[in-house]
Amino acid sequence: MTPNATPNPVLVHALRGTAVESQHRGAVAVVDADGALHTALGDVQRPIFPRSAVKVLQALPLVESGAAERYGLTDEELALACASHGGEARHADTAAAMLAKAGVDVSALECGAHWPYFDGAIKALAAAGQQPTALNNNCSGKHAGFVCLGCLMAEAQDRRAFLTGYVKPGHPVMREVTAALQATTSYELSRASVGVDGCSIPTFAVPLQNLGLAFARVGTGVGLRPGHARAALRLRQAVANAPYMVAGAGRFDSRVMQRLGQRVFCKVGAEGVYCAALPELGLGVALKMDDGNNARAAEVVMAAMIERLLPLSDADAVFMRGFSDAALVNWNGIEVGRLQAGPALR
Amino acid sequence: MTPNATPNPVLVHALRGTAVESQHRGAVAVVDADGALHTALGDVQRPIFPRSAVKVLQALPLVESGAAERYGLTDEELALACASHGGEARHADTAAAMLAKAGVDVSALECGAHWPYFDGAIKALAAAGQQPTALNNNCSGKHAGFVCLGCLMAEAQDRRAFLTGYVKPGHPVMREVTAALQATTSYELSRASVGVDGCSIPTFAVPLQNLGLAFARVGTGVGLRPGHARAALRLRQAVANAPYMVAGAGRFDSRVMQRLGQRVFCKVGAEGVYCAALPELGLGVALKMDDGNNARAAEVVMAAMIERLLPLSDADAVFMRGFSDAALVNWNGIEVGRLQAGPALR
Repeated sequence: MTPNATPNPVLVHALRGTAVESQHRGAVAVVDADGALHTALGDVQRPIFPRSAVKVLQALPLVESGAAERYGLTDEELALACASHGGEARHADTAAAMLAKAGVDVSALECGAHWPYFDGAIKALAAAGQQPTALNNNCSGKHAGFVCLGCLMAEAQDRRAFLTGYVKPGHPVMREVTAALQATTSYELSRASVGVDGCSIPTFAVPLQNLGLAFARVGTGVGLRPGHARAALRLRQAVANAPYMVAGAGRFDSRVMQRLGQRVFCKVGAEGVYCAALPELGLGVALKMDDGNNARAAEVVMAAMIERLLPLSDADAVFMRGFSDAALVNWNGIEVGRLQAGPALR
Repeated sequence: MTPNATPNPVLVHALRGTAVESQHRGAVAVVDADGALHTALGDVQRPIFPRSAVKVLQALPLVESGAAERYGLTDEELALACASHGGEARHADTAAAMLAKAGVDVSALECGAHWPYFDGAIKALAAAGQQPTALNNNCSGKHAGFVCLGCLMAEAQDRRAFLTGYVKPGHPVMREVTAALQATTSYELSRASVGVDGCSIPTFAVPLQNLGLAFARVGTGVGLRPGHARAALRLRQAVANAPYMVAGAGRFDSRVMQRLGQRVFCKVGAEGVYCAALPELGLGVALKMDDGNNARAAEVVMAAMIERLLPLSDADAVFMRGFSDAALVNWNGIEVGRLQAGPALR
């Protein structure tokens, strides 16, 4: 896994006044459920770490195994299993509820603690004189899902002993999760580059074309085994019903899915990755910004791709344009520039 | 001011495990006080917005005019006039003291209010149930310096009436500030692209080569008019004596100048800009990352340039290497990758 020989195209411009102050390069693959490339910008064959963009793929075993049903997980809880959330009280409480349903608590989580991503949640904790716990970790729902899966797999064994080390590649829970990633991407992970993610689970490098394929499959069920197809549908419905859980206040994924419902399933990943399923078109989208920028690069590109691909009402198009051509305002509220999807995307 | 036709080189790699996960492109100019290029990486002729990297140039009139002397500004206060600070109580209190010395208060500031850059300062304000004021704005010291200059220039006029609109290009204060930028960079600003900065003052697009020249001049006094040369020396001494004021807890500029003293004067600017003077070498350094990333791109490049140019003791070299080849750790404290200056810089 080496850097590109040929630079990827510029996809986003940050303008100050009318001048291009900064720019973001990246690659985008749009793929159908048979694996055919609908659109390719930049190098879509180079493996990249998808990070949290594939949480829905990693949550398939939670549903397929029957664990979600056994523990009576709600839409909110299943959406949180697919989430990179803002660490708000609502998110933390929902993760705690998932663990309680499986008969364990926060001490089972191996994701680590960090201050919430959402500013308001940081201030609320600080104002209450509290410190964050693993429940505030943006991945706590995914991990709570892993723990629920592990509790089911433990069967008659001691649950806590069985769960220990569930983040490691060789643990039975992580083997199930990795198998789901391989099955949906059709990419042989045994020879992939592997890194350790922020929450300590393995992250495997997969080409954008394969990630796009996996999301086309998640959106349509085509090419998935029946258990994965049912689980994918269940998770998409859960997220569409509880989009606040998948991200949170002011966040792109929550705002877009609150607006567009099941027409889009989209999910951010660290280091400038985004994946999406567009079920009515039978397409998956996967993108990675070279510089790893999420908030002002990957989101802008994903918004522009949704506008470009999906037939939208005028009002929905204006809504999406608010992300793909956004005013940059300074501390006095003066518009000083714009963040814009570049010509390559229009 | 258009994007580069030829991509700038990759200067920083973000590794996950041993794989390059993300990368940052940019350009660097190293220039002597006669304007000769010592080193050029990428396009150093394209004008870029220097943003806060030129605060020391913008503070020259504060000293040259006699305002700093008239109001008895201390090293801490002069360093704050050159700062993008973390908005800590120490910084806010120092800005308030500058204003008080000139007989005005926070209501004179036109920079706007924002939550502090430093996490600890955010939590401290939230825990105290307080909101930030313009004193917490990272530019409050620069603006307090503008206000002090304006109070001197107002002479017999009503100070507050004279100060109103000091952030506008046509105000007598901003005309002095702009003239200092033009004189030190030897770049004709009347035909430059101009934007509005985060704190509402104009920012003029200047090529990296001219910015490097200005910092070579600031470090040596060569090529500056006597008043600017004396002011530059005074400001460099102030920052070397009070480096905490120029940035704050954990920040690159404070840490590097606490360690290296007057051997380096360095200053970050928004959108991936860095400028530095290396007085003993007679050189100025100016760089801009294409993607606008500061914390993990511009800082890494500046650290690598200091290592490359300045003769360092083994201990100082190890210290700088901590910025140019830094471990990336996850929420469990596990090293998951490295942030490294790329081969083009070594």
